[in-house]
Amino acid sequence: MFMFEKPHGMRDTLPGLYETKKKVRQSLTDLIDKWGYQFMETPTLEFYDTVGVQSAIEEQQLFKLLDQDGKTLVLRPDMTGPIARVAASKLLKHDHPLRVGYAANVFRAQEREGGRPAEFEQVGVELIGDGTTSADAEVIALVIGALKSAGLSSFKIAIGHAGIADALFVEVLGNVERADVLRRFLYEKNYVGYREHVKSLPLSSIDKSRLLELLELQGGIEVCGRAEEIVDSEQGKSVVDELKALWDILEDYGCTENVRLDLNMVSHMSYYTGILFEVYAENVGFVIGSGGRYNKLLGHFDSPAPATGFGLRIDRLIEALHMKDEPCEIDAVIFSKEQRVQAIAYANEERMKGNKVVLQDLSGIENIDQMTKSFANVTYFIGARKEEQNG
Amino acid sequence: MFMFEKPHGMRDTLPGLYETKKKVRQSLTDLIDKWGYQFMETPTLEFYDTVGVQSAIEEQQLFKLLDQDGKTLVLRPDMTGPIARVAASKLLKHDHPLRVGYAANVFRAQEREGGRPAEFEQVGVELIGDGTTSADAEVIALVIGALKSAGLSSFKIAIGHAGIADALFVEVLGNVERADVLRRFLYEKNYVGYREHVKSLPLSSIDKSRLLELLELQGGIEVCGRAEEIVDSEQGKSVVDELKALWDILEDYGCTENVRLDLNMVSHMSYYTGILFEVYAENVGFVIGSGGRYNKLLGHFDSPAPATGFGLRIDRLIEALHMKDEPCEIDAVIFSKEQRVQAIAYANEERMKGNKVVLQDLSGIENIDQMTKSFANVTYFIGARKEEQNG
Repeated sequence: MFMFEKPHGMRDTLPGLYETKKKVRQSLTDLIDKWGYQFMETPTLEFYDTVGVQSAIEEQQLFKLLDQDGKTLVLRPDMTGPIARVAASKLLKHDHPLRVGYAANVFRAQEREGGRPAEFEQVGVELIGDGTTSADAEVIALVIGALKSAGLSSFKIAIGHAGIADALFVEVLGNVERADVLRRFLYEKNYVGYREHVKSLPLSSIDKSRLLELLELQGGIEVCGRAEEIVDSEQGKSVVDELKALWDILEDYGCTENVRLDLNMVSHMSYYTGILFEVYAENVGFVIGSGGRYNKLLGHFDSPAPATGFGLRIDRLIEALHMKDEPCEIDAVIFSKEQRVQAIAYANEERMKGNKVVLQDLSGIENIDQMTKSFANVTYFIGARKEEQNG
Repeated sequence: MFMFEKPHGMRDTLPGLYETKKKVRQSLTDLIDKWGYQFMETPTLEFYDTVGVQSAIEEQQLFKLLDQDGKTLVLRPDMTGPIARVAASKLLKHDHPLRVGYAANVFRAQEREGGRPAEFEQVGVELIGDGTTSADAEVIALVIGALKSAGLSSFKIAIGHAGIADALFVEVLGNVERADVLRRFLYEKNYVGYREHVKSLPLSSIDKSRLLELLELQGGIEVCGRAEEIVDSEQGKSVVDELKALWDILEDYGCTENVRLDLNMVSHMSYYTGILFEVYAENVGFVIGSGGRYNKLLGHFDSPAPATGFGLRIDRLIEALHMKDEPCEIDAVIFSKEQRVQAIAYANEERMKGNKVVLQDLSGIENIDQMTKSFANVTYFIGARKEEQNG
């Protein structure tokens, strides 16, 4: 094996990108902090039987290992499960909504090096113990605020509801298997497959057109009126009412400009139970983040509670921001033994002023030209006198 | 399995400790930054055959797993190996000393839950490509500066040299096996065992007393004079000269007050090749950090280069600092639908002022007394009028 190799999908973050990530992370976490969310950290390794099986991430994407007792461990695939575990065991005793923030790396095994990272950083929040539509609106308003404070200008939050397709499928098909096929097409955003499948079903033309109309339910608040025309059931109507209430609150937050309803969005593996959303930046072909309501998860940790949240991917956000790695301004002070005391004093002064200063013994440098080229300013304390040279 | 369980040695970092860690980390990294070290991040997972086998960490402490091709991966046990890998493959082309910083979690498998963490954060630096004693002095001066800026007042850096015991053992014993037994006793700091073993050896009383005198070589610069009396070889004398030169530079840095020579300190598995050190805080029974020169490691990555560095453990530093988790000051704004717009505007204003404010829909609260008790100030926007109540 080549000594420089890394496992599939594993990346090094060199200094330029490190500083960019730090800046973006800080702008997100500062705002989340201001909104009263408290940050926490959970272990990289969890038991498969607790956090692993509850995850929304597909089984084959989990990194698994055995501990010394033969129990299966996973590298956390997301932060929602671990935070639910902590909330259930320690934080939820207070009987009031809990707001938790995180900035953490998560892990998704890649079959082979296909350009996708197997470890990446998410910044996000969980709002646990509040089932109101206000809570859904709050996390959407917060994700919008966070993206703006990171400097993203053109983006949309596509908002759907796990219950709308369900209601329609139950009304029209009354059959779970058929609904699962259609839901799969929607989940994969394979609208051609969805259309073909609808056409092949033994249904009245009215029912077929109701199913096809679902694909068109994208846009502003007017989408709710059109949704009301295709759903008949109590369940369907109440979902539409919930979306209308959400829109009202988002108007109060002044952030409907960055919002789009997209009612054919469905949840993977029934993980989400209500309002759900995805973040899209203009001219970038991938989802930067997502979130939604997951009212069943806490129950698996013996503490049933409604919950909602979001996670943003730092790497994709940086791509959407088209940020260049900022060149790092570092000065160098090069000394020989005779003026070492003076060099140390000078470097310390400069550092106290806030400058970044490397203090380098001349005898430790092999290639002095390369050395001086790599720094913004070079100051020499060599032999008997002090010289300055701007690089 | 109980749903709240975590793997052996895995910990959650709740909000109070999270903020304390953040503060301590920041004070360390800010100083490291000022000294011109550039931060980077490496993957959590590495190949066992590259970073795993080169690690100074014992085999049974490595977390191992298999990737989809059957190759063995490890969770990084330290950052020195990964940074050496990156330096060798990407950073060292410039032919001049490289200064790298890191703040990262590392992993050490624990046989059973014995109070020791299996994942903990290290903040540290690597200075690669500079074999001068100035480089050794720089990292020691930096570790002292970093500890001071984190607020630690009473601490000592115990400084040894991997070559001093080696020189003496070769002179007196001329035999690698015997030296290994004695070196093991020193590594385990089992001085009783060391004394017993020395007494049992078939040596002249002068040689025995030279070996026993090694244990006494602890203190200030005067230790170097005593060391010169017990070593005769060129190798031994040059090691003492190196320590004297180091002391001179540390005097120029003004930091000998926090330094103690401890010449019976030896390196585990010959990892360190020269000056090495450990950080001790007063009244705390464990090493907070360590470091030293490792001139062989980069050669394993096909880029031979001298190197030195240190790593500090954040958890132990926090213990040594006797820091209390700072209570987090968060205000709450509780609203009902009628005054939602006003509540949002008020919360935003407060956040703009720098305050942390939770905005909470009254109908999402189960236990209003618990809710109000948990926040510094609570402001109500309910019904027709605005009330304030200090909690």
